[in-house]
Amino acid sequence: MTTGEHDSQVSQPNPFLTQYVPPRIDGSFTGKHIITVDQFARKDLQILFDAAASLRKRVHESDRGLVELCNSKVMASLFFEASTRTDLSFQAAMRRLGGKVISASNGVQFSSVYKGENLADTVRAAGCYADVLVLRHPQLGSSYEAAYYLDKLNQRIQNPTVIISGGDGIGEHPTQALLDMFTIYDKKKQFNHLTVTMVGDLRHGRTVHSLAKLLTHYAPEQVTVCLVSPRSLTTPREIVARLQASGISVFETSELQAVLGQSDVIYWTRVQEERFAADPQEYEAVKDDFIITPAVMRHAKPDAILMHPLPRKHEMGTRSDHDILDEDPRAVYFEQMENGMFIRMALLAKVLRGVYV
Amino acid sequence: MTTGEHDSQVSQPNPFLTQYVPPRIDGSFTGKHIITVDQFARKDLQILFDAAASLRKRVHESDRGLVELCNSKVMASLFFEASTRTDLSFQAAMRRLGGKVISASNGVQFSSVYKGENLADTVRAAGCYADVLVLRHPQLGSSYEAAYYLDKLNQRIQNPTVIISGGDGIGEHPTQALLDMFTIYDKKKQFNHLTVTMVGDLRHGRTVHSLAKLLTHYAPEQVTVCLVSPRSLTTPREIVARLQASGISVFETSELQAVLGQSDVIYWTRVQEERFAADPQEYEAVKDDFIITPAVMRHAKPDAILMHPLPRKHEMGTRSDHDILDEDPRAVYFEQMENGMFIRMALLAKVLRGVYV
Amino acid sequence: MTTGEHDSQVSQPNPFLTQYVPPRIDGSFTGKHIITVDQFARKDLQILFDAAASLRKRVHESDRGLVELCNSKVMASLFFEASTRTDLSFQAAMRRLGGKVISASNGVQFSSVYKGENLADTVRAAGCYADVLVLRHPQLGSSYEAAYYLDKLNQRIQNPTVIISGGDGIGEHPTQALLDMFTIYDKKKQFNHLTVTMVGDLRHGRTVHSLAKLLTHYAPEQVTVCLVSPRSLTTPREIVARLQASGISVFETSELQAVLGQSDVIYWTRVQEERFAADPQEYEAVKDDFIITPAVMRHAKPDAILMHPLPRKHEMGTRSDHDILDEDPRAVYFEQMENGMFIRMALLAKVLRGVYV
Repeated sequence: MTTGEHDSQVSQPNPFLTQYVPPRIDGSFTGKHIITVDQFARKDLQILFDAAASLRKRVHESDRGLVELCNSKVMASLFFEASTRTDLSFQAAMRRLGGKVISASNGVQFSSVYKGENLADTVRAAGCYADVLVLRHPQLGSSYEAAYYLDKLNQRIQNPTVIISGGDGIGEHPTQALLDMFTIYDKKKQFNHLTVTMVGDLRHGRTVHSLAKLLTHYAPEQVTVCLVSPRSLTTPREIVARLQASGISVFETSELQAVLGQSDVIYWTRVQEERFAADPQEYEAVKDDFIITPAVMRHAKPDAILMHPLPRKHEMGTRSDHDILDEDPRAVYFEQMENGMFIRMALLAKVLRGVYV
Repeated sequence: MTTGEHDSQVSQPNPFLTQYVPPRIDGSFTGKHIITVDQFARKDLQILFDAAASLRKRVHESDRGLVELCNSKVMASLFFEASTRTDLSFQAAMRRLGGKVISASNGVQFSSVYKGENLADTVRAAGCYADVLVLRHPQLGSSYEAAYYLDKLNQRIQNPTVIISGGDGIGEHPTQALLDMFTIYDKKKQFNHLTVTMVGDLRHGRTVHSLAKLLTHYAPEQVTVCLVSPRSLTTPREIVARLQASGISVFETSELQAVLGQSDVIYWTRVQEERFAADPQEYEAVKDDFIITPAVMRHAKPDAILMHPLPRKHEMGTRSDHDILDEDPRAVYFEQMENGMFIRMALLAKVLRGVYV
Repeated sequence: MTTGEHDSQVSQPNPFLTQYVPPRIDGSFTGKHIITVDQFARKDLQILFDAAASLRKRVHESDRGLVELCNSKVMASLFFEASTRTDLSFQAAMRRLGGKVISASNGVQFSSVYKGENLADTVRAAGCYADVLVLRHPQLGSSYEAAYYLDKLNQRIQNPTVIISGGDGIGEHPTQALLDMFTIYDKKKQFNHLTVTMVGDLRHGRTVHSLAKLLTHYAPEQVTVCLVSPRSLTTPREIVARLQASGISVFETSELQAVLGQSDVIYWTRVQEERFAADPQEYEAVKDDFIITPAVMRHAKPDAILMHPLPRKHEMGTRSDHDILDEDPRAVYFEQMENGMFIRMALLAKVLRGVYV
């Protein structure tokens, strides 16, 4: 129970993060909030991936029946910080299913609601009008508070509303992890002896943490995870422990060349200069090892895939490097981005209707 | 006829407020602007409430036929100041009827139209593209000017456009008053000897003024209205006179306990500290009398209803107080908020199509 | 190939302006980017105008079949600067065809995408989710770069995406020119010996430059173009040369009265005081000649039409002048604005589906 604190205090985790337990999917998505990858078992991933692949096929065939799937449903976009990619892809996903989208005409962060009202009341306001909320919020754990108060609201009104997290602060961004995992699944089809290499700032990268959690479900297939980061930005020990406990072989290094030639999946992320404020010399020493260029890709396997959550900056070199990499069939980051829409379509259809899609 | 004044001069009432006479509904909504509660007779309220109740039922049953009602119609959201609740509920209302919604991608207050153009031209631009405009504007009476110029435009183009006010400055917010009245009607069903108590800053609160006007239609049922406010923030005399002229018994006090036990409807609003700039001591003296808490509600009737236009702040105590009040079956402010969408659906369907809904 | 330049450097033309050649329409719109009026031959205009007129009729008849035309298609609105009129009319156009619209909930100019990402990646992100992008951008030639990178993307994903320019800096605003030309076509029906007079700052006005290019297609009908501007703001020589080369008679003057009485079409635009920074006295000397008022219109032909791209300011006099002009049947600028929606509907239907509309 919070006591009057202002929501703009986003530097502290939201207390509901530890108090609210999100429901496990356990084969049934209908009416369930989606706020962490921990809700998903392997069979749930399989259901979701099958739905995403089916929906992708129907989009590519311009199947007009798609717009019947969420035809009478309304999604509210509540973005308390900008994230255009997540925002646009959720909107496109809902619309392609025939659903309706509402959002504050002036941007919710400028609104009186945001200024004057706590999150608990704001999500319930949207919950009165919509069937599903997509919440992006700077505070870690805010999606847990939103889910708690929507559960309260749902006891009072006839039209229950679920939340799907679009990322909360340094916490999770579950739909990003699901689309990443779907892309690996989709491109590789099977996981036998697959080597997944994640590169960059693995200490702070919520993207790689969530993906690592999902990879544990595929440990029985002898998956190896290589973690390539500067020494001061290694993966949190609890993530490494979780990978190992699942049976995955973990290999940590600061040298890409040690693992590049064996990698089936190369998941690239940015190393930000700001992280080295205490030791600028270390940044200078390591930065060139964390730029992927066409020259570096020459040492990758011919059937490897190069992934990136985008947007990209200097970690993919110059604009000319981008243009060359973009032509490489192994660079799948645009397909990955497209998959984001299909995964979000699958989630929306599943939580709103539970229908076979 | 205005002469070149800049629309950002919102401190003065818009001259069209006294020059333009909005049409009375008189049993027929089709093609009529909605800008003041004075357009409504009791029979018009009954038509609207019946439609809202019917639409609510259809939403709760996920009736897919709803999206046929405004299927080929377009609503333009023109929010010159933020009002997320009004904005989202109008959008949801239009979408659930199958209508389309357009709004400035960057927020209309940042747009070149707003900076460079007078209101008369802006509403006609939107009127060229849309079938109904929802206008929220800081200037008192701006909706009257919008209606005037849309009437002019409608003589020139084939596709007539109506405006629904989403609130204009310190003036009216007609859809808020209609949803409040609908909530009382819906929860109480009959008005015989009903006692409606309004609490807070009754001098400035446009919400309570408009609701008071609508209550006059139910005077024949021996309705009593209790007005509870600090002495310096009492209800304007013309509102009191209008209530009395209709036959309603009016009781004014600054002490809630004098009327709480007899109240069937408790309509709570905020007393803002800024209103006591001239006499801060008075604020300190009265503020605790204008906070509704679970302890205060213990003295209310078991079948009373507690309403609030939301958002709420300190006038409902702490977050803990909120959480306890929210569980009280007499607290109907979330249902009230939900009703906002149903009333707006009813209005949109009625003005756009006039259909039986 | 650009090399890492930041997109906010909009003062220089985009290098793709000269490197990318947009496809000619040549009778077939399907899947083609729309970025310049140079893509259109006279027969293409005819196809478009026929479609716009047909769609207008269907909107006026509330034809519910319209929403089938782009039913499973998604349009992304990317407005890097505000242009409410273009924005709203594109949205309304797409929605009336049953299409879906997505846009950044917070406005794209505030988004992380805009701040951190180059245009090439932003348009490809939107291209992954949408079927058509509408791009408004302050840099001359940016729509050419967008088209180039969408072509690249379309080789990688199954769902090709086209761009329609909503104006790029001081460059073209092709849909404005097309709606202007359609309005002349629609009001005059035939071009025999038609005299089109353009008034205002003809040096900088991209609107009149694009319209001039389109008028060349009607040269065989003995069209005359009168160019009325202050001496320091005359039409660029290449535009005049292009008109003359096509066979159109061109008459340049700074005196409206020399041509007003013979004009069939009067296209009015603003002369901005800022353009006379070097010679404020010239502005004082000429400004009154570039204000159209009811008094001036008394000297125009009874069957002339007065056009204006809107928004309007002092160049149409006072608010009282506006009100009087708006009643003049010759003032067609509201119909012109409405035509903007119909032309955009025609373009969207043609590029997305190529259907007979």
